[in-house]
This record gives sequence, C-alpha cells and structure tokens, in this order.
Amino acid sequence: MTVSPPATANPDTFAERLGTFYAVGRWSAVNDDLPWTPAPKSLPCMWRYANLRPFVEEAAEFVKGDAAALRVLTHLNPGHREYEAACGHLYSGLQALKPHESMTCHRHAASAVRFVHEGHGGWTAVDGDRVEVGTGDVIITPSRRWHEHGNDADEGLVIWQDLTNDPLVNTLGANFFELHPDGTHLPTTPRRDTHATWGGLLLPDTRRRHEGSPLYSYPWEKCRESLENAARAGHHDPHDGVVLEYADPSTGGPVTPTTGCRLQLLRAGERTLTHRRTGAVVYVVAEGTGTTTIEGTDFEWSAGDTFCVPSWARHHHTNRSGTGEAVLFSADESPLLRALGLYVEDTGPFDGS
Amino acid sequence: MTVSPPATANPDTFAERLGTFYAVGRWSAVNDDLPWTPAPKSLPCMWRYANLRPFVEEAAEFVKGDAAALRVLTHLNPGHREYEAACGHLYSGLQALKPHESMTCHRHAASAVRFVHEGHGGWTAVDGDRVEVGTGDVIITPSRRWHEHGNDADEGLVIWQDLTNDPLVNTLGANFFELHPDGTHLPTTPRRDTHATWGGLLLPDTRRRHEGSPLYSYPWEKCRESLENAARAGHHDPHDGVVLEYADPSTGGPVTPTTGCRLQLLRAGERTLTHRRTGAVVYVVAEGTGTTTIEGTDFEWSAGDTFCVPSWARHHHTNRSGTGEAVLFSADESPLLRALGLYVEDTGPFDGS
Amino acid sequence: MTVSPPATANPDTFAERLGTFYAVGRWSAVNDDLPWTPAPKSLPCMWRYANLRPFVEEAAEFVKGDAAALRVLTHLNPGHREYEAACGHLYSGLQALKPHESMTCHRHAASAVRFVHEGHGGWTAVDGDRVEVGTGDVIITPSRRWHEHGNDADEGLVIWQDLTNDPLVNTLGANFFELHPDGTHLPTTPRRDTHATWGGLLLPDTRRRHEGSPLYSYPWEKCRESLENAARAGHHDPHDGVVLEYADPSTGGPVTPTTGCRLQLLRAGERTLTHRRTGAVVYVVAEGTGTTTIEGTDFEWSAGDTFCVPSWARHHHTNRSGTGEAVLFSADESPLLRALGLYVEDTGPFDGS
Amino acid sequence: MTVSPPATANPDTFAERLGTFYAVGRWSAVNDDLPWTPAPKSLPCMWRYANLRPFVEEAAEFVKGDAAALRVLTHLNPGHREYEAACGHLYSGLQALKPHESMTCHRHAASAVRFVHEGHGGWTAVDGDRVEVGTGDVIITPSRRWHEHGNDADEGLVIWQDLTNDPLVNTLGANFFELHPDGTHLPTTPRRDTHATWGGLLLPDTRRRHEGSPLYSYPWEKCRESLENAARAGHHDPHDGVVLEYADPSTGGPVTPTTGCRLQLLRAGERTLTHRRTGAVVYVVAEGTGTTTIEGTDFEWSAGDTFCVPSWARHHHTNRSGTGEAVLFSADESPLLRALGLYVEDTGPFDGS
Repeated sequence: MTVSPPATANPDTFAERLGTFYAVGRWSAVNDDLPWTPAPKSLPCMWRYANLRPFVEEAAEFVKGDAAALRVLTHLNPGHREYEAACGHLYSGLQALKPHESMTCHRHAASAVRFVHEGHGGWTAVDGDRVEVGTGDVIITPSRRWHEHGNDADEGLVIWQDLTNDPLVNTLGANFFELHPDGTHLPTTPRRDTHATWGGLLLPDTRRRHEGSPLYSYPWEKCRESLENAARAGHHDPHDGVVLEYADPSTGGPVTPTTGCRLQLLRAGERTLTHRRTGAVVYVVAEGTGTTTIEGTDFEWSAGDTFCVPSWARHHHTNRSGTGEAVLFSADESPLLRALGLYVEDTGPFDGS
Repeated sequence: MTVSPPATANPDTFAERLGTFYAVGRWSAVNDDLPWTPAPKSLPCMWRYANLRPFVEEAAEFVKGDAAALRVLTHLNPGHREYEAACGHLYSGLQALKPHESMTCHRHAASAVRFVHEGHGGWTAVDGDRVEVGTGDVIITPSRRWHEHGNDADEGLVIWQDLTNDPLVNTLGANFFELHPDGTHLPTTPRRDTHATWGGLLLPDTRRRHEGSPLYSYPWEKCRESLENAARAGHHDPHDGVVLEYADPSTGGPVTPTTGCRLQLLRAGERTLTHRRTGAVVYVVAEGTGTTTIEGTDFEWSAGDTFCVPSWARHHHTNRSGTGEAVLFSADESPLLRALGLYVEDTGPFDGS
Repeated sequence: MTVSPPATANPDTFAERLGTFYAVGRWSAVNDDLPWTPAPKSLPCMWRYANLRPFVEEAAEFVKGDAAALRVLTHLNPGHREYEAACGHLYSGLQALKPHESMTCHRHAASAVRFVHEGHGGWTAVDGDRVEVGTGDVIITPSRRWHEHGNDADEGLVIWQDLTNDPLVNTLGANFFELHPDGTHLPTTPRRDTHATWGGLLLPDTRRRHEGSPLYSYPWEKCRESLENAARAGHHDPHDGVVLEYADPSTGGPVTPTTGCRLQLLRAGERTLTHRRTGAVVYVVAEGTGTTTIEGTDFEWSAGDTFCVPSWARHHHTNRSGTGEAVLFSADESPLLRALGLYVEDTGPFDGS
Repeated sequence: MTVSPPATANPDTFAERLGTFYAVGRWSAVNDDLPWTPAPKSLPCMWRYANLRPFVEEAAEFVKGDAAALRVLTHLNPGHREYEAACGHLYSGLQALKPHESMTCHRHAASAVRFVHEGHGGWTAVDGDRVEVGTGDVIITPSRRWHEHGNDADEGLVIWQDLTNDPLVNTLGANFFELHPDGTHLPTTPRRDTHATWGGLLLPDTRRRHEGSPLYSYPWEKCRESLENAARAGHHDPHDGVVLEYADPSTGGPVTPTTGCRLQLLRAGERTLTHRRTGAVVYVVAEGTGTTTIEGTDFEWSAGDTFCVPSWARHHHTNRSGTGEAVLFSADESPLLRALGLYVEDTGPFDGS
C-alpha cells in the first residue's frame, strides 16, 4: 500500500473535523501534558492557623452538628482552587467537633490520617476500638474500616486536621462511602484495644498483611519521645534533620498504602540542605517557629500552621530560633510513588544551598 | 476554653471571607468530590478506525516527520476533552510512521504499550535491542528505558496505537522526558535479543526484579496461539470469555507496574455476563465484530476500533457473529488499583444479564 | 530396544555389587527415610534448671574464661545424642559468664536468640550497640553481625540460654565463623542505641529489609506488659492461651529468618486444647508451674526449666496452679517451615483433649 | 549471690555425670559442629551411567512393578552412605518403568524434579494433566500435587533420574506421603493442559502464587533451543558458561521453593573459572564430554553421568572436546539457601584458576 495523499488535505480545518470524532492531533512529544520534568498543578502555599481558627469557631455556630456529617474547612491550593486537594492528591482540612457532638459511623475506600490541633475530650473509634485523642496525637483510619468520632467534653472545641487520599481514590474511580446502618458501631464494651495489641514490642500473629496500620493512634508523648531518643542516638539527615516515620507495626512500613507520615526535629538554628522529591507533602507545624524555602520563596511558620511542598519542588527548612527546637509533622505521597516505581529524590547540587 | 461565638457570625459572607485564605467550608461528607460510589469523569466512548484512519493519512501529508517528534492522533474522552486521556488515566493515540522515517531516541518515566494496527517494515528498539513489529504485535517500552522506532519499508504507513500511563505519571508530578544526546542509541551490532533471552522456557538469573517487562515484544502469532491453546484446554471466564494476560516473564506479573494487557476470545455467538471493576480499560478490536454494552448503551465494533470502559461501569460483550471468533486486546489499570489496595470487582447480580 | 534380562540376574548379590558404585536399590516409596507422616529423630525431652545449674557453677570453676571462647552446657536430645541440637535443628545451651569476664567479639552466619536466666551486670553488644541484660530479657544476634558479651558485676554468674540455628546452618553447609581482629568491636562511645531507634512507635526509614531484627533486646518488663495488655484486651488462643510473637519492628515478622520467639500466658488452671505443627519448639519456663503433655507423656515444669516439642508431636499445656499465671517463652522453627512452604498445623479432632 | 565453687568440682567425671541429664559441656565456639567455614558431610562423587544402567535392567527383572511402588537405584554419597542423599539434602536416583507399567497415584510434601535419560512411551501426570516425556525432558512434581507415571510403550525401559528434596523435608519433620484412594487420579478426559496454559507468552491470571511451577514439563528441544538462543545473544558467565534457569512462568523464579534447575552450555574447549557457593548441586550430563575439577580432583564425565559438588566446594568445568559443545543439567539448593538468607558465592581469587 502506498500512502496516497487525501484529496482534501487541509491543515486549517483538520482539528475541527477531527474533533467531531473525539480526537486531536499531537505533533510534539513534549507539551503541557507531557513535560520535560514534573509540572504539578499544585503551588507552594501556606495556611495559617491563626487565620483559619476564627472561621472554625464561626462555622461551629451556624453549621449544626446534628444535621451535618461534617464541619470542615478544606484547604484549597491556589494552583487549582476548583480541585479539593491541598497539594497533589492529598486532601487537607480542619474539622471541629463541639461538646457532646459525635459523627455518624461511616467507612470509605480512602484512607485518613488526622493530626489533633487542640481540645479535650475528643475520641475516635476504628473497628469498634475507641481511643481518646489529645493535642499532637495522630489518628489513622485505614481504608474500608468503620470509624466514628466524638467530643465528650462539656465545653471547648476539638479541632483536628484531616489528611486523606480522597482526591487520589476519587480520580482513580475507586472511592466508596457508606454510613453504618446503626449510626454507631461501638459495642457497649469495646472489643479490643489497639494500643494493648499493637503498641508494644510483642505482637499478635504478624503474618496477616493489613491495608493500613492496625495501630490506630500514635500519642504525641510517645512520638515526641521517639524523636528525642533518635536525636540523642545521633540520627540526623542533612535534608530533613532528625526524621522518623510513623510505622505500621505489622509491616514496619507506612501507615497507609499511599500516604506516609513523618515527624522531624530541627535543632535550634538548624538549616537543612536543599533537595526535591516526587510526591506532594503537606506539613503541619507541631512545635517552634521557622521558615521553609520552596523554590526560592520563604514561608514563615509557627505552631499550628500548615504548608505544602508540591512534587519536585526544591525546598529546605530553617529553624529561626536560636534556642528552641522546631518539630514538623507531615503527610506525604512517597508510599504511593514508591508503589508505582515513580519515587525519585534529587539532592543537588543546588546553588549555595 | 469555651467556644465563644464570633461577634461577626455571618453565614452569608463566610465563603467569600474564608476564600481569601485559600479554604472553603465543607458541610457534607458526600458530594461531587466525595461520591457514594466511584464517579469517574470518563464516559464510555468509541473511536472507529474507519473514521480516524483518513486523518492519519492526511496528517502524514502535512506533519513533517523530520521536524516533529510525534505524529499522533490522540483519543479524547467526551467526559473531559481538555484532559488528554482516553479513559481514566490511560492515554491512547494512533501514531503513524512514513517510509524511511524514524523517531529520535528518547525515554520517560511513563510506561508505554503499543498495539500495531498495520504496516510492514516497522521496528522498535528498547535498550539497544531492535525488534521488527507487524500487525497485532504488542510492544512494551518500560519506564526510563531508552527507545526509538522506525519504518524501514519503501512504501506504506506503519500505524500503531500508543497506550501509556502519561496522564497518571503527570498528575502525580513524576514524569521526566529526555532525548538521547546522540539521536539514536542503536549500536552497529545490537547488543542482545529480547526474544532469545526472555521468550523461552528457560530464563537468565531471575532474581532481579524489573520495573517493566524485559520481553519487549509479544508477536501476534504467539499470542493468538496462546489464546487458541487456552480455549482448547477449557479455560473460560463467564465475564470475559477466554482471557489471558501479557506476562512479564521475569515476574509472571503485568507488563508494567500500572498498566496490564490482556487478550480475550469471544466464541461465535457468545454473550458474556455483566460485571464491573475499579480501573479504566481501553479496548482495541483485534479480530471479528461484536457489541459491548456499557451501562446500558451498545457500542458496536469491528477490527481496528477502540472503545473504553470507565472504572466501575457495568459492561458485557457480545460476539454478534454466528460463526467467527472475536478477539479483543485491552490495556487496563488493574495493576495500579491492585498496587494501592483499591481493586474491586462486582459480578452482580445484575438484572437479567 | 528390548529389555534383555542380564545374564547374571542375582537378587542375592545385587546390593553388594551395586554398593561398590555408591548406590542402593529402593523398592518402596515409603520407608524410614520416606515416612507416611513426619518422623523427626528428636524425642520430647525436659532439662530441669535445678539439675543443670550446679554443673554450670562447677564448669565456672574449671573452664577458664580467658582461655575459652565459650562455657556452655549444651542440651542434648535423647533421640540423637551425637547431634548437638536440643530439638529439630535448634541448638540450646546454658552459658555462664563470671564476674568481669567478657567474650571475644565474633560473628557467624547462624542466628542466635538468648533468654537470660539470672544475674546482674550482664551486657551484650551487637553492631557496636551495647545493651544491659537482666533476667527474662531476650537478646537477638542476627546473622553475620559482630557481637560480644560480658559480665560487669563484681560477683555472681550471669547465666543465659543460647538458642541458635547452628544445626540448620551447619547441615546446609552454610556456616561461617569469624573472630574480630581487635578482640572487641566496641567503640569508646557506642555509635547508636537499638532501643532509641527501634523500640518506639516511630521508626527510621523502614524500606530497608533486614535479615534479622534491628531491635537487639526485648526487656522482660516490656514483654510481660505486652502479654498482660493482650490478655486484658481479650486475646486468647484455645491451643496456646494468650500468645504473642517477638516482632522485628522493621518488618512486623519474626526476629530471625528461621527462628521465631513467642511468649505465652496460661491463666490459673488453664488447660489448652491439643494440636500439632511442623517444626520443632524449645520452651523455657519464665514463670509458674504446670504440665505439658506431649504425645501422651506428661512433662512437669517450673520456672527455669526447658523442654521441647518435636515437629508434629501432639501436645497441650496445663497450668496446674489454681491461682497463679504461668508464662512460657519459646523459640520455634515456624519461620523456617513457612519460608519453604512446609508449615502445617493440625488442630484435631484428638480424643477428648 | 557469689559463685561458690561446688564441693565436688571434678572435671574428670563431669561429662559422665552431666550426661545423665542429657547435656554436654562445650568449651569452644568452633568445633566439628561449629566450623570456621562450611564443612558439609557430603563429598564430591561421580556415578557413571554406564556402571549403573546394567543394574537398572537387572532390577527390572526381579523387582515386580505390580508389587512395588518404586524401582529406583538411589545414589549414595561416600561421605554419608547411611543417609540417602546424593549431596547435601538432595535425593537422586535412577527410576525405571517397564513396558505397560504405571505407578500408583500419590503425593507428598517433598518436591521432585525428574530428568529423563532414555525411553519411549513414558508419561507423567500432575493434577490430572498428562504429558508425554522423552529423553532430556525435565518434569516437575510440586509439593502436595497428585501425580503418577507410566510407560505405554510395548518394549524398552523408560529411565529417568529423580531429584527430590525428600532429605530436607524429612530432616525438618515435615514430610507427608499419601496414596490416592482410587489408585489413579486421571480422568477419562484430561482436564487441562500445562503447556497450553503455561508454556506461552500469555498467561492466565498470574496473581496467584504457586508453591512450585504450574508448568509441569520442560521439553528438551525447547530448553536446548533457549540455550542456543542465549549463546547467540551473547550471554556468558565466566564461571558457568552459558547458563539459564528453568523458570516457574507464574513467578519468574525457581521451579520449586527449595530446588532450582539450570542448563548450561560449555563451548568446545571452554574452561570456566573456579568459584564456590553455599548449597549442594547435583549435575547430570546431557551432552558431550568433559571434566569437572572439584577441590583439586578431576571428575571426567560423558552423557548420562551424574556428579555432585558439595556446598562451598571450589570447582570449575572443562569441555575437553575441541569441536563439540557440552551441556550440563543441574539441580541445586540455591533457592533454599536464598530463602533463608544463607546464599553466598565466592569467586576467588583462587590460585591460577
């Protein structure tokens, strides 16, 4: 067969005619959709707790807990305000529970990590196992497990930050959401105790592989102590300071299949080296004050603030205090990227950093 | 701390005021972004080869091979024409090479699978290993391996269909694209032979795990023969007919970490049972005629046509011929969904199907 | 070719003539070497601490610590006294260190687990990391890691029980033994801290897979507390009581690739159900008194005693105390059996037990 | 507590007194049971086919096929004649089936590999799937699968070599042997076809992990062709010549969990470099003549001969022919050693080799 030029060869009308058949010509291998290097739509951004907390209180006034399943202020990224993700495919939002409120028990295919900002009397229950939650605690609600939350205190809001992979699971067409038919799944007597079972050195039969950590809560005191111990033992990474991962005790791996959590300590005055990695990261400041420089822009933070580093963005951290430590909690997509063989880290050289 | 209602509680201006801080109120757990069941943006769609082939020829006239890195008609999905993916996060497009054309050697983090529609003299080379490609052959170019393609014939187009995970790798902020500094990576004498090494019953040291199949081509005759053999041996799935996977010989698993390929045979007159799965699928008709019914809509196909089944869409296939077999090639996202613990299959019951 | 009967067919001299060529006729598929069911050479056996401890003291008199690398009373199995294994391919022995003694640093391909019976001032160091060891502690020295031990007290023996896979590694022809050229590998300042790093809820980068636990010691108090917590949380196995595994925190799996460790609690008066499993088990009584019935024979034990259950031997445990708990430590071959696809458990029914 | 020397300290009677309690003193870390380097009991050995074949014929006369489940000449190792293993924990023996004989269907926990030496009309069936077997074919009967064998020819013996892990499974106390209640498990019409299913480039759903290859036979022609192709493609290992593994198509790994099989080609006149590895190897000469030098001793071989290389024994191969190729089949324990983290290879330097 020879290539016979079509009688109607007409580049000017080509695109329009072709479009009627749901197709488009692509004449270059590299374009907006096929970049030379990662070009995520998310931009570096910061959400100050001091700015958002008044809105949390205000919403607590007019959003009724008994009528709504949620009362959340969702962090939007300036690179894609219409897409409810703080960075990459990580959802982030501030959720508030008023005294004596509790949420209807539910479950979903997405996985959630929660960082508690403030409040007394908060609790969460996963798979019938209820744990009290306090400031700095990290709560895991793995994919497809029934869970519910509440605030048992007589006064004061419980405020935590939800960090989920909903955007990812949604864009993959794989999310399922279900309300528990009884409203609650809590038995009169809780049937087991996640800390008793998974929080020690000995474990139950560990051959079963979970799709998320069977340890549902990581209390702040124990996590902070781990960080302190690691620092004393000499652990230090030039790009991240003293950094540890929240580990699923049944695997030694990340707490969910796509989102990992880390806690990192920046010593007084420390300035880390610049690096970049594939996968988005959302940081929550747990302690101290400092600056994170992302692609040349400084973001100054203090406790409670949230900021994000998009995939492949160069960044480094500086603890501006001359005396105090700074501690950053973060949720990141590195488990997702690794699972797909797409994780890359680049440590430079970068100019002067 | 008591919750003091802010003096300025004003639901009417809440959203606008909050928006200045890059946040939005979310008062419901289930909405467009958090559906009860998967709600992919992709719609079922068909692209007829008879409709698009004239455009391939026309493009071959005015798109110069020596000036362009690509000459591809990209399949667009009516659910998201602005997003270059045929379905879910699978890219699909028809690429044409004119006689004596060859593409500049390149590599990228995305993985590609190619199904050859027509032509003589086509070849592809991966990692310095050159193989001839003919109609029905399937070519794999794994993540990050150098590759290039060409048409050595004196006349006639070589046309194949590219099926890649570019949309996925891009949205994860993890794509990298690179042109080979020398234009070609082919040595005077090819340095090894993918079929000699990976196409037989004995293999080289198999402990090394690849990020994609080291067998770069699956010739049509061998694949069709496997299907015939499986049919004779009695393999049959009520939802897919006689179905086999293109296997990475070094792992027995899918040909790339996120995209798998299958070949399935529908016997004369066969009508499969309805089912649905998470993950998008793009089908290419290799042989025969038939109908695929997707969420109640019939898509009639014949050899060369492409159609897609979005995630979680109910579908079944019917071979309308009373005498001839039909064969469907497909690329699907099930390896991606499985890697993240998000693969679900639902086999009904569905009304009367 | 037809089978021509050899002229010299002579069954009577066949074996002798054949033997000269290093061969033997085997005319039955099932014989001593190919049993119908597992026929381990090891027999159930008990070694009382009260019987052996005087010999430990006696040996401490005439076996010089400075001349000998070891001072161990090795448990022999009555089924194979010539083969230095307590049961199956598990080595067991009581080792004693006198005041101010220390062993030369060494390493080997075999893995060791140590259960501390008594003494103050004991320490062990693995990979330059020194930990104090006390009664009930469990120490892990993984394959190929440098390690050394000592007794810093001014008086009193430190006595522990070595449980190793030396017999297995030896019979596989894969053991290597090496003395450290400097006698010790301990730096002036220990370079890290196994508990600080691996004993908390947060872990260092956990993607590295170890060939044995990076947590080198499991203190008795923490292990006993885990058991108590699990009991309170309602964990209970009818064949083993409240049972937990010593877990490698970096994998959630067993502490070495072939030997696992467990701690189990028998409540006052508890009698477990009979079962049997492939793989040998060596038990050390940590607390209480009771009886283990192995293939119909009762073995009565109290704290410090050692007994073994050979592969596939039916057994059950009885806590004879009406008021006190009993606690058993055990080292078992189940990781080995599982790694080879040979682990089988049989829970009966067994007559009346 | 102070260490009080026992009143009866008496080294001379110590061992005898201690022995009554099933214990022995061990005062050195390195002894016959704890060597510095691997000290397997197996010795290098050769079994010539020409020597053993007359015994096979003789046994066929007086060992009745209808009374015996087996008619096997078992290879014994001069290092441990009482232990029925050719080398390490690999069993090897020559089995003969007379015309119209067939064996009772059976199964066991051990895995078997068979190399066919000669004969026409032989067949083997695994899991109801019957395949014809000819000279040079390799047959796999995985752990716990029903299997049976027969000779359908009118004249001539079928002789193959059994290579099993029975010694390993027995010494681990994990073997089970069972005869099929019906004598045969073959249906009137075989229910599937191992080659049709697992012998091509496309495979059935490959997520299921097998405990042994689902491809039960590796025909000689295809294996020899793979070797030829690999040689032409330039594959070559200085220690093993052109070497390929028999691969489980569902995993890309070894054909059984503990025993792997390899086929290697020595070019005319080739002499490989000396190396040593942990794990025993039994070789069967498939083609040609040559010499293997094991720890300094030459073993000259020709087609049909068997020889063994014990764990950690230095060895190299020489093809003595100036014109013809030599081909060695081997069964080895490397999968076992690797599964336990005990595989080590040493490539020298060795003096002058």
